[in-house]
Amino acid sequence: MTVADIFNEIPFAKHLGIEVTEAADGHAEAHLELEAEHSSNPATMIGHGGVTYSLADTVGGAAVVSLTEDVAPTIDMRMDYLAPVTEDIHAVADVVRDGGSMAVVEVEVYDTGETHVATAHAVYKTSGQGAENAWRSENDPRDGAD
Amino acid sequence: MTVADIFNEIPFAKHLGIEVTEAADGHAEAHLELEAEHSSNPATMIGHGGVTYSLADTVGGAAVVSLTEDVAPTIDMRMDYLAPVTEDIHAVADVVRDGGSMAVVEVEVYDTGETHVATAHAVYKTSGQGAENAWRSENDPRDGAD
Amino acid sequence: MTVADIFNEIPFAKHLGIEVTEAADGHAEAHLELEAEHSSNPATMIGHGGVTYSLADTVGGAAVVSLTEDVAPTIDMRMDYLAPVTEDIHAVADVVRDGGSMAVVEVEVYDTGETHVATAHAVYKTSGQGAENAWRSENDPRDGAD
Amino acid sequence: MTVADIFNEIPFAKHLGIEVTEAADGHAEAHLELEAEHSSNPATMIGHGGVTYSLADTVGGAAVVSLTEDVAPTIDMRMDYLAPVTEDIHAVADVVRDGGSMAVVEVEVYDTGETHVATAHAVYKTSGQGAENAWRSENDPRDGAD
Repeated sequence: MTVADIFNEIPFAKHLGIEVTEAADGHAEAHLELEAEHSSNPATMIGHGGVTYSLADTVGGAAVVSLTEDVAPTIDMRMDYLAPVTEDIHAVADVVRDGGSMAVVEVEVYDTGETHVATAHAVYKTSGQGAENAWRSENDPRDGAD
Repeated sequence: MTVADIFNEIPFAKHLGIEVTEAADGHAEAHLELEAEHSSNPATMIGHGGVTYSLADTVGGAAVVSLTEDVAPTIDMRMDYLAPVTEDIHAVADVVRDGGSMAVVEVEVYDTGETHVATAHAVYKTSGQGAENAWRSENDPRDGAD
Repeated sequence: MTVADIFNEIPFAKHLGIEVTEAADGHAEAHLELEAEHSSNPATMIGHGGVTYSLADTVGGAAVVSLTEDVAPTIDMRMDYLAPVTEDIHAVADVVRDGGSMAVVEVEVYDTGETHVATAHAVYKTSGQGAENAWRSENDPRDGAD
Repeated sequence: MTVADIFNEIPFAKHLGIEVTEAADGHAEAHLELEAEHSSNPATMIGHGGVTYSLADTVGGAAVVSLTEDVAPTIDMRMDYLAPVTEDIHAVADVVRDGGSMAVVEVEVYDTGETHVATAHAVYKTSGQGAENAWRSENDPRDGAD
């Protein structure tokens, strides 16, 4: 099971239609098809800021896990919105600092026409998860997966 | 139609089960019942960072709109995660700077047991939306609403 | 030597006139007298954003070190400016999450009249500094200090 | 008087030794020579986070003013630290969103050896400064300057 596969089994990623297509060596990519339920407005289709953020947070985590092979909870993320989202979006994440116990990730989000719709920086915790690590619990149906 | 009503009609807020219960004078409150589809992990229930963020972004927008009575797109938001989300959450937002063309909002998120699970600061654009303002378009079914 | 004393020996803190007055149990306080060289404008006195930030970063670090008794490099900080700085400022920092390998800190900055001029959230690295820890090097004139 | 000249007259920029070398069309560059007073540590030379931030905030402002030709107060800035600063640093800023009443800026900071030491995103207010605009006051010694 690849890191991308693991992220594609995250219930919330599935709920939003997020698909991680690549995750290796601190780099990850993902996309999302914009659907009616993603809108921030009942009268028109403009993606909600939480949709773009959820894509970024997910792909950022995948970039980190592709390096660390352990769960990596988000400590903080800041997103700057650059243009309204009115079509499908895809995101690219890169670990720009692997600091041992935490990683800093940069995420860029684009729409189909390659308009740069958002940019984000995040910090993920990368070690000492210990008991928090449900991914490796005895009850994990994906046991031995990654 | 109240500001809370308007936010409760946002398709993405409905999709996540976000309910805004109060929005007046730059202050807003909202909550979300944690469901299986909100999890960041197929093996256990830990709310995805994007769920908490979406609640915060929504209630923050409601706080701003309760002051400005116009659409208020998010310019940026930073969320710090303080504890894992394992139960229902609620959020409180306050405008801490109303700067004419933008507003700064502080959002605090708590779980049922009042554990402080996240804190966020955001900037929203608050004027000159002009043509972007679909809420007041001729086609708006909620015409004259707020 | 107290944690406050250690921070008051930081060359850059001295250069700006930052004084840490309290640092214990994850809480710290500091102030700065606004001088001509702090201005962002040659024609009038408005404190530069970097002055307020430097005060916040310093007092935030002191709050962390008061818990961990080890160096705590800043991983990231976000500052929101709420009002122009035209007089002396003081800041209050509290650790809101002590996450083992990192700490999240909240900092509020006020002027003499108690106007809330800025708010910040930051993440500091709190362990595994190893060789980076110049504070405990053999050459440290403050050897055995804290 | 160029935008770079204006920024080089900012008292706090002078106090830190920040020099803006370029500012045009939403792009700006600046550098700073690391001096003893910039250190975050009395025992060794590691630049204080506030020094790097002050450089970024200044060059970011210059990028905005090069587009708007009006004062542009910082609304918020987030800085992520990627590596310790132990030598001279330089920064590059670009406006990535010019939103009418506000601008989003991206700043990258490097040391002499081109190590990427910090990255930042900021929002600046870009219009309606009106009475706040001391730069164009009657008492401004640089009257008619830019």
